Amino acid sequence: MNFGSDNLSGASEQVMQFLQDANTELQTPYAGDDWTKQAEQRIQEIFGTDAKVFFVITGTAANCLALASICNPWDSILCHGQAHIINDELTAPEFFTGGARLIGLERATAKLSYQALQEYLANNTPHPPHNAMPGALSLSQLTESGQVYQPEELRALTALAKEHGLAVHMDGARFANAVASLGCHPADITWKAGVDVLCLGATKNGALMAEAVVFFNHELSERFVQLRKRSGHLLSKGRWFGAQFCGWLHDDHWLTLAHHANEQASKLATGISQSDAASLIWPVAGNEMFVRITRQKAQMLADNGAVFNEWFTDILPEDQKLKPDETVLRLVTSFKTQPEDIERFIELLDA
Amino acid sequence: MNFGSDNLSGASEQVMQFLQDANTELQTPYAGDDWTKQAEQRIQEIFGTDAKVFFVITGTAANCLALASICNPWDSILCHGQAHIINDELTAPEFFTGGARLIGLERATAKLSYQALQEYLANNTPHPPHNAMPGALSLSQLTESGQVYQPEELRALTALAKEHGLAVHMDGARFANAVASLGCHPADITWKAGVDVLCLGATKNGALMAEAVVFFNHELSERFVQLRKRSGHLLSKGRWFGAQFCGWLHDDHWLTLAHHANEQASKLATGISQSDAASLIWPVAGNEMFVRITRQKAQMLADNGAVFNEWFTDILPEDQKLKPDETVLRLVTSFKTQPEDIERFIELLDA
Amino acid sequence: MNFGSDNLSGASEQVMQFLQDANTELQTPYAGDDWTKQAEQRIQEIFGTDAKVFFVITGTAANCLALASICNPWDSILCHGQAHIINDELTAPEFFTGGARLIGLERATAKLSYQALQEYLANNTPHPPHNAMPGALSLSQLTESGQVYQPEELRALTALAKEHGLAVHMDGARFANAVASLGCHPADITWKAGVDVLCLGATKNGALMAEAVVFFNHELSERFVQLRKRSGHLLSKGRWFGAQFCGWLHDDHWLTLAHHANEQASKLATGISQSDAASLIWPVAGNEMFVRITRQKAQMLADNGAVFNEWFTDILPEDQKLKPDETVLRLVTSFKTQPEDIERFIELLDA
Amino acid sequence: MNFGSDNLSGASEQVMQFLQDANTELQTPYAGDDWTKQAEQRIQEIFGTDAKVFFVITGTAANCLALASICNPWDSILCHGQAHIINDELTAPEFFTGGARLIGLERATAKLSYQALQEYLANNTPHPPHNAMPGALSLSQLTESGQVYQPEELRALTALAKEHGLAVHMDGARFANAVASLGCHPADITWKAGVDVLCLGATKNGALMAEAVVFFNHELSERFVQLRKRSGHLLSKGRWFGAQFCGWLHDDHWLTLAHHANEQASKLATGISQSDAASLIWPVAGNEMFVRITRQKAQMLADNGAVFNEWFTDILPEDQKLKPDETVLRLVTSFKTQPEDIERFIELLDA
Repeated sequence: MNFGSDNLSGASEQVMQFLQDANTELQTPYAGDDWTKQAEQRIQEIFGTDAKVFFVITGTAANCLALASICNPWDSILCHGQAHIINDELTAPEFFTGGARLIGLERATAKLSYQALQEYLANNTPHPPHNAMPGALSLSQLTESGQVYQPEELRALTALAKEHGLAVHMDGARFANAVASLGCHPADITWKAGVDVLCLGATKNGALMAEAVVFFNHELSERFVQLRKRSGHLLSKGRWFGAQFCGWLHDDHWLTLAHHANEQASKLATGISQSDAASLIWPVAGNEMFVRITRQKAQMLADNGAVFNEWFTDILPEDQKLKPDETVLRLVTSFKTQPEDIERFIELLDA
Repeated sequence: MNFGSDNLSGASEQVMQFLQDANTELQTPYAGDDWTKQAEQRIQEIFGTDAKVFFVITGTAANCLALASICNPWDSILCHGQAHIINDELTAPEFFTGGARLIGLERATAKLSYQALQEYLANNTPHPPHNAMPGALSLSQLTESGQVYQPEELRALTALAKEHGLAVHMDGARFANAVASLGCHPADITWKAGVDVLCLGATKNGALMAEAVVFFNHELSERFVQLRKRSGHLLSKGRWFGAQFCGWLHDDHWLTLAHHANEQASKLATGISQSDAASLIWPVAGNEMFVRITRQKAQMLADNGAVFNEWFTDILPEDQKLKPDETVLRLVTSFKTQPEDIERFIELLDA
Repeated sequence: MNFGSDNLSGASEQVMQFLQDANTELQTPYAGDDWTKQAEQRIQEIFGTDAKVFFVITGTAANCLALASICNPWDSILCHGQAHIINDELTAPEFFTGGARLIGLERATAKLSYQALQEYLANNTPHPPHNAMPGALSLSQLTESGQVYQPEELRALTALAKEHGLAVHMDGARFANAVASLGCHPADITWKAGVDVLCLGATKNGALMAEAVVFFNHELSERFVQLRKRSGHLLSKGRWFGAQFCGWLHDDHWLTLAHHANEQASKLATGISQSDAASLIWPVAGNEMFVRITRQKAQMLADNGAVFNEWFTDILPEDQKLKPDETVLRLVTSFKTQPEDIERFIELLDA
Repeated sequence: MNFGSDNLSGASEQVMQFLQDANTELQTPYAGDDWTKQAEQRIQEIFGTDAKVFFVITGTAANCLALASICNPWDSILCHGQAHIINDELTAPEFFTGGARLIGLERATAKLSYQALQEYLANNTPHPPHNAMPGALSLSQLTESGQVYQPEELRALTALAKEHGLAVHMDGARFANAVASLGCHPADITWKAGVDVLCLGATKNGALMAEAVVFFNHELSERFVQLRKRSGHLLSKGRWFGAQFCGWLHDDHWLTLAHHANEQASKLATGISQSDAASLIWPVAGNEMFVRITRQKAQMLADNGAVFNEWFTDILPEDQKLKPDETVLRLVTSFKTQPEDIERFIELLDA
């Protein structure tokens, strides 16, 4: 019953097999090998456009290299107040961008609202060079609350961003779960919706460790090669990224894995919403859910082997108030989550 | 009737005279000259402690070098949401600190409240190394709203900060106005109140351009000399800072100038508070005031030669709402403000 | 006949097997998993001391994070003029250290000489804060010329460095080859010889991608965790590093692989030194050699399938002059090099 | 007899007078005042072109902001090994540029030779993104050895630089002395000779503290305003720079002052070259000279009140060898140097 994080799992067997296959022959170092080229092509095919594709080892590196590619050191970067880049990456965005500033626009909401972005941009009348000017909008798909932006929501947000001259970055650590949830074409929620650069995460969903930075806007990728090299993120054995992505993308494997994780989450959510012992803070769209529960019940679950994280209570929407004995849990499913674990968890919850 | 800013004035005659006097002989370059030494001693005497003193040319440089001295690049810096460092210094704090992060705790208040700091520190339970940890608290005295912190308010805030391991920085761009307003000893609102480093601004109050960074906590000053040099802020003709400060501090000149500015502000505030045409957002403590006024009246004042800045409307306290035809003005007096200008302004206001 | 680089090979079978084994169960993310702990312990055992051990993905990241841990942004870093950090890592050292400066002391020599270091330190009489002061010495073992420092050479260099207050970094991208070549205990050429921090490379010698940063001097490691996180080098699935290192170190596998590479190099070197068609620039100590050869012969070798890199001709010692038709080649063997390839190359050379 | 540095003098009376004049009225803050505009225009007139002009407080700030404007963080900057930017500005160039690398091409020469630049560019065949690529050439006029580049020398060097895509920066801390020495039009050794950006120093030659950054190449100035602000170098009382430059440039005052300094240097050099007790290392072109002398004689001069700096002995050309009892002195004259001091020095030398 491990719902701690989707980064607790290893790699899928298919990914491991491709890795094994890639290991036999000698290959051109850095990003010059056949596996890397194949993986780039696969991504271009999947998105239906000739994006510039680069691979790195962590989500933090992917996000921060992307932001450094699209921002000046004197810009600000607008994002949701719960975004991974502002909460969980130390001051990596500042380090990579040379000192750009993150502005968290909302916190106790599940997605960045059009209104919040609009208000910030309307009220913010900078007097250059005294005030930091917004240079980029960063959106997470899934959001940190496990929600999905619909294509039309994205189009509205990015249109507003572009009116103000902002580049648009998407943190897609759980992008596969979003595509699986929406049943849309990957293009619909990226370049067709105004996204300039996507960080496509494979790590949480079946790869060992591999993230792709996908520039739909070619111009913005011009500095990437230098930025990656000088941050120590250019692998000499580039094949290793290529092979993982080839395995991950082969035969829609990435979506198969994401569908599994989403389905398990859906079952878990159904169980929780039917239980008197806990309640969902937001409806579940992907493979994450946030739950209000008594501390006592949470303890009992943990004592019986359930693994999860207690979460920040200030993410609660204003219309929901924690009772004094309640806490907030985050539960995450993955491609490895077993139906039995879901059942057992619900049984315990209702016990 | 120029109430635009206290940086519109030149230098006081006394400061100019000292500058003239310092110009005659040859002097050891950098900070090795007699004037610099004398100015350092005067500051130590005035504060009643053997602080480490350094001089720089701008408030931004002073603040940012101080912050870089007391923070790691992976720390966050807590400040009021209206603070100069977060609003008016582009991304200089990030540049100097190597990427530390500013967190603005409140915005529509006149001072940073104990409660706001307490809540942030209580809710913020960082999981290193994922989350930026608070490394410093920055307070402005006068605040950006022209208010003063009482010594006991400062002591409470800094005690809380120190419990959490934060160093304390004070932006004293209008420190002289604060001392003049409180009638206290400079020590009472600095090192005796838990301030580790003060940026003592002379520029807005009678100097040409000169700011002192005063480290009461010697240990925190260890990197300052290198930080100053590598940011191009070590003057070869250091005497120029020394002479300005000697002139500024001589015979309590700095306080005389500040008293004048504060008195003019007080008269202006009295006139405004008695007028039906405008109202003060906060009571006036130093040489700044923020005023609600109809746009029509503001235009009339401007047409008649009054100079001032329209201000951000989101600083309004929640219990005050702007009427649709109202705007917010900032009015600042200086050591050069003439009583006639005050009278004329009030006359116009009431016309 | 691929002598292009030791990073063209994949991973050894043993390393792949451990990776496979590590893939089955769920594991605590980041560096909290069992594999990581085990790998740390193995490294401590092998070096016979309780070093602080961290894992990263590339040699550039390892070197630069180590340098950033031991240097101030205003220091200089002394190294050989051919060092990887000054030649092949773009401006990554500057990026990670926040702007420290690399000083290349010699170029046309095979190792950094005691005399060169001594002269630099004697002549360099910095006037702080105007001049950058040496903060660290960086040595490569193997050197970029494929040479080894004897333990006594290292002790002399580090003693001199420490007299001047410098920390000592060792770039050990080919450390295994050095140990195999010297037949010494790993401690003899690291902490017992005055090295504060070693970057122990596994990638070129049998791992997929894994480097360890080994701090013998604990104090210098204090900032590492933050530096690693904010540069995007903290892996969520830390086990992946742990498993590689466990496999690599198990049963002296790392030395077995290095011995193989060194032996093949030795055979190749013997063949070359006996040939009239080429000559070694320096005697061979590890798995690299640098060779003078006519362009025509080099072309013939390439045409027949030999892979190698042409090298910078300014590395030639002063007593060796290239003839107009000559060039310099670098030949590298690896744990995968086949004896047949050596034989075939020598045959071609002598044809 | 103070030949220590040209930064020991204060300001000229004319500069002080303009400063005084500028002090009377209120002025728009930052760089929006009348004095700044006037100074910009005067510089444009003097150079005969519509350059973009910005003012800062120190030579280090001017040089580093200029370099940061024209370089990427992953570029290298080529300069003479004695250049101020590589020797005397700590690691400020790295700080401002975000980590670009300085490469000192020669050391024991008086100017950067065409050959040295040519050889470096020919041998340096970078493999992006592994190696830092030259992004700028920085030349000093006067050089650090007090020499001048002739217009044709500059044109040759900058043509070579531009062939390789390098931008050209000129450190003109003693630019006035160079113009006075050459008797040329300022344009002849700047934009007409391929210089993209000049740092025009007034501080060493009659100003209190003021340097102008003059972009002949407008495109390269695009980031300057942001770079200046975020490094704390935008003055709120901008008039102060404007007034100094207006005074300094009025009626060719800057050249009058430089001519005086050069003439005194010329007399001093004549005396030295006629003396048996010392010899000039290079002929004197401006207001600096470097002298070989016995330690005993140097001591005697110091004991009798002469002020000067001992200099680095590794700047000596290869065909000059210091005798064991000799040392190297730097002597600098300024606009305040008195003929009596020259005479007295020569008398002492010959005593």
